[in-house]
Amino acid sequence: MDRGDQVSDSSLVSMKKVEIIIGGEDLHLVEELLTKARVSGFTIVPNVSGKGHHGIHEGHLLFNDMHTLDMLFTVVPEDRVDPILAGLGTLFDRHPGVVFVSDVWVTRKNYFEQYAKFPR
Amino acid sequence: MDRGDQVSDSSLVSMKKVEIIIGGEDLHLVEELLTKARVSGFTIVPNVSGKGHHGIHEGHLLFNDMHTLDMLFTVVPEDRVDPILAGLGTLFDRHPGVVFVSDVWVTRKNYFEQYAKFPR
Amino acid sequence: MDRGDQVSDSSLVSMKKVEIIIGGEDLHLVEELLTKARVSGFTIVPNVSGKGHHGIHEGHLLFNDMHTLDMLFTVVPEDRVDPILAGLGTLFDRHPGVVFVSDVWVTRKNYFEQYAKFPR
Repeated sequence: MDRGDQVSDSSLVSMKKVEIIIGGEDLHLVEELLTKARVSGFTIVPNVSGKGHHGIHEGHLLFNDMHTLDMLFTVVPEDRVDPILAGLGTLFDRHPGVVFVSDVWVTRKNYFEQYAKFPR
Repeated sequence: MDRGDQVSDSSLVSMKKVEIIIGGEDLHLVEELLTKARVSGFTIVPNVSGKGHHGIHEGHLLFNDMHTLDMLFTVVPEDRVDPILAGLGTLFDRHPGVVFVSDVWVTRKNYFEQYAKFPR
Repeated sequence: MDRGDQVSDSSLVSMKKVEIIIGGEDLHLVEELLTKARVSGFTIVPNVSGKGHHGIHEGHLLFNDMHTLDMLFTVVPEDRVDPILAGLGTLFDRHPGVVFVSDVWVTRKNYFEQYAKFPR
């Protein structure tokens, strides 16, 4: 992790957190979308509940009460957000889901690792 | 979903995320409060743990170590935040809990759906 | 909770949310680190999944696909963030993990409770 210039590992870099809530049966579609968008990793919080709903979809409730859902989030550089949202917009035309974007900061060390090349 | 003016569905609208952590036995009180505040939907992450505590309540630890808690969050327009916080303030006088507010952005499509009228 | 000046309990105070994702076997190390940093409480979301990865660690994938992880977050005053990140930086040299920092607001009531003295 030698980077020549001695920047502190604890300096923070601005990134975007993208949180997606989707039905469990459609989770793999989001995973495929993120992989295509070259998102290097994400975290899944399984079995969250959608009580009430988060909007409607094609005139129907987006989620039924107590529908079992999964929450997935990833932290990406800002320039990755638009392609992800575009893909999700198309996905959500057929599969109900919601997405929230927010600001987060990561340590410089994590930031560089996000960009590192590595074999799968 | 025809809105006349062709605004891109991927343009982002500023909203507020309200995260609440509360004992499982009091979760229904938060749900009722949000429903009265006309919050159209929320997500529950069940069975989180409160280790240590998040402050004290009436001189006692807010949560015991490893108390089983639920986390609930909703995403609402900014003008809904104050009524929700006022209600929670009253609730938290008797039932320990914490609330965090943060900025999130949603796609315009989600935003309009949040406001849509629909039957329960 | 008499504070003399009658500030509304619903006024918001800026804090920082620190979210940490780490392997379940290393969770206790994070807990110890936060306790030493005088963090008064935190919340654990157990059994999240790290699909793909969140960067590399010493040339290896940070997390294997579907590695079971824990997510832990705490909400602290801004001046606590640097010591926590410094501690995590050292911890992450040996134990893979990621940390995200974001802005949150808490009600003044919660804020004062965070600072209250109390026995463990």
